[in-house]
Amino acid sequence: MPYVNIKVTDEGVTKEQKAQLIKGVSDLLQDVLGKDPNTTYVVIDEIALENWGTGGLQTDEYRKLHSS
Amino acid sequence: MPYVNIKVTDEGVTKEQKAQLIKGVSDLLQDVLGKDPNTTYVVIDEIALENWGTGGLQTDEYRKLHSS
Amino acid sequence: MPYVNIKVTDEGVTKEQKAQLIKGVSDLLQDVLGKDPNTTYVVIDEIALENWGTGGLQTDEYRKLHSS
Amino acid sequence: MPYVNIKVTDEGVTKEQKAQLIKGVSDLLQDVLGKDPNTTYVVIDEIALENWGTGGLQTDEYRKLHSS
Amino acid sequence: MPYVNIKVTDEGVTKEQKAQLIKGVSDLLQDVLGKDPNTTYVVIDEIALENWGTGGLQTDEYRKLHSS
Amino acid sequence: MPYVNIKVTDEGVTKEQKAQLIKGVSDLLQDVLGKDPNTTYVVIDEIALENWGTGGLQTDEYRKLHSS
Repeated sequence: MPYVNIKVTDEGVTKEQKAQLIKGVSDLLQDVLGKDPNTTYVVIDEIALENWGTGGLQTDEYRKLHSS
Repeated sequence: MPYVNIKVTDEGVTKEQKAQLIKGVSDLLQDVLGKDPNTTYVVIDEIALENWGTGGLQTDEYRKLHSS
Repeated sequence: MPYVNIKVTDEGVTKEQKAQLIKGVSDLLQDVLGKDPNTTYVVIDEIALENWGTGGLQTDEYRKLHSS
Repeated sequence: MPYVNIKVTDEGVTKEQKAQLIKGVSDLLQDVLGKDPNTTYVVIDEIALENWGTGGLQTDEYRKLHSS
Repeated sequence: MPYVNIKVTDEGVTKEQKAQLIKGVSDLLQDVLGKDPNTTYVVIDEIALENWGTGGLQTDEYRKLHSS
Repeated sequence: MPYVNIKVTDEGVTKEQKAQLIKGVSDLLQDVLGKDPNTTYVVIDEIALENWGTGGLQTDEYRKLHSS
């Protein structure tokens, strides 16, 4: 019955990678808490860079600042 | 003052159906808890099939597996 | 496969009322979108009054202001 | 370490406005709780008008009703 | 920069199990997407049985029904 | 109509500080996007240290590691 929400920046996560995330989280909950994967929901949200802030800046600006 | 978030897979939910979900949830909270619909927010998120996992698989893969 | 999250202020919602909310939302999603209640999750969060703000105030303060 | 999620209706919020929201929230958490902006995440979700309900109606319908 | 929220029913998850979930999710995001664990947040919510519904019922009722 | 959710670790945030966070976020949304504070909801969640992970560790463990 677990519900897991994964939020990552929208940077080309492939269908295969999403499949790995879903399988990995479902297996983890089964291993640690004995949860049945069939009742585990995993929802992946991909957030545009300008909609995700850290360090008081949008991600793209934050990276420019910290890469120079 | 309730806030309700409905997450469903992105499979062509029509504007009319969304209207029914919003009205139904608002009426339910009014009937059960006496909440004023004018202060009830309902937000609907539509999640791509490959972004929603169950049974350790992405929805489209899960359905293929369970339809054969 | 829907996931529904209901947030309300923590004001003594009874177990019976929660049961009505869960049944009502599950039936609504079945009626409108044909979703199987067995794959619909409903999670209810009860939020302390001082942790819920509206009108720039905490709920208890907001109500005092608007009841005088 | 705060995580802040801002949901607004999808009505042309500009990149600059998002930057102001991210900066404003990060500064607020630093001022009030002494949180380091570098460990504060802010995620902005923009919700289609027909996916946001208030008063039992979708936002566009609600506004038509309350503007006449 | 990922943010992961794990919701499970409140049934005595131990501190050690939470540590395993946090480590497992962080490692998974590093392995699959190359995300730095130091910028990955994992938040675990434990939901009372009567606040989590499935099959139109509260979890404890659902289990009674399906165990008889 | 904005909905803002602030998640912070559960470390004695006072009622007064919560009031400042609620006022600050409501004012910010009014200043930047012209949103009416009366239709802005702010919900604050306080998360136990052992339920919040960063760097693959629970917050208390992470802090011990990084303070030595």
